[in-house]
Amino acid sequence: MTYSYLNQIRTAIDLLASLPLIGPKTATKLAFWIIEAPKSKVDKLLDTIRELKDSLEPCRQCFSLTVRGRQPCDICQDRSRQRSICVVESAMDVFHIESSGTYNGYYHVLQGLISPLEGIGPGELRIEELLQRLQKGNYDEVILALPPTVDGDMTSMYIAERIRERQLELTVTRLGFGLPVGSTIDYADSLTLAKALENRKPI
Amino acid sequence: MTYSYLNQIRTAIDLLASLPLIGPKTATKLAFWIIEAPKSKVDKLLDTIRELKDSLEPCRQCFSLTVRGRQPCDICQDRSRQRSICVVESAMDVFHIESSGTYNGYYHVLQGLISPLEGIGPGELRIEELLQRLQKGNYDEVILALPPTVDGDMTSMYIAERIRERQLELTVTRLGFGLPVGSTIDYADSLTLAKALENRKPI
Repeated sequence: MTYSYLNQIRTAIDLLASLPLIGPKTATKLAFWIIEAPKSKVDKLLDTIRELKDSLEPCRQCFSLTVRGRQPCDICQDRSRQRSICVVESAMDVFHIESSGTYNGYYHVLQGLISPLEGIGPGELRIEELLQRLQKGNYDEVILALPPTVDGDMTSMYIAERIRERQLELTVTRLGFGLPVGSTIDYADSLTLAKALENRKPI
Repeated sequence: MTYSYLNQIRTAIDLLASLPLIGPKTATKLAFWIIEAPKSKVDKLLDTIRELKDSLEPCRQCFSLTVRGRQPCDICQDRSRQRSICVVESAMDVFHIESSGTYNGYYHVLQGLISPLEGIGPGELRIEELLQRLQKGNYDEVILALPPTVDGDMTSMYIAERIRERQLELTVTRLGFGLPVGSTIDYADSLTLAKALENRKPI
């Protein structure tokens, strides 16, 4: 015999376990937290999710996020920033770089990477919009901050080539690769180690 | 300069990271999933959380869960079950034991464990309600399925003593081999749980 309330909990756990980085154990804990927590806390969670979903939209200039109706976004409107554009895969990358406080220029979010395996071509990304921004605005540098993967490298190469074709007067750079600060050598894979050696600096 | 939308995302991440088993990395991934997923998927998540919260309540007999308004719960009403009571710490334990399919009796949820460190005494748990059920109903066995921790052992001893005092004609057992010491019941896989039930011992 199956009991309907157990099936309801199971269905909820399955849905929670389909969220990113959530496995079945965490999903089960979450489901019972929802059931047993004070109603006010669960309402707060629901409100937070709803507000997060409803109050943001993509910036029409850089394709990062902005408060709904505020176009372009605060960063695009900030005239005090350096005249460089950091090209990233997603709005989450903008959030991480801004949180690190290590960069003070503008952004451009591609909303993905070129990926032949997943059938994603350059036309599906915000590359044309990037080239138009570069042609209009007088930026000094484009920093390609894409992940050091096959798709990331391919996308970087493609964009660098398109910029060269248009003969824009711009420095095009990419992030330096090497050992993550705080890690140890035995944790680095051989490709990272090769990059770290290649990029060695005099001290 | 700080941007209001980044602060809103940070506030949401902090709230998500306060949920059980969710760290800051998972919370960040979840926040951006909420922002970028199709609205229909986020609405489905909101509905699932709301329904899970609104449709269940504690069973007034065994203190596990039941569909709101259905008292006592389906398991308490199921006359085909064996006349034993499995005493557990939480409704999540009932869910795990039922999902393992290794037990076919009734339950009693204590809603916690005796814990001098956290200032939880026997009076705050559902122990008196358990003793009353045992006195009224003709059960053959009480299985103390509490975690093999200091608090769990103390609670098992306390309950066994109270049953002995009342001179009830009952076998009192606890879970046997299978549970790794120091763990909790919701982490046990179903084979381990089956062993623990099979090897239960009188105390």
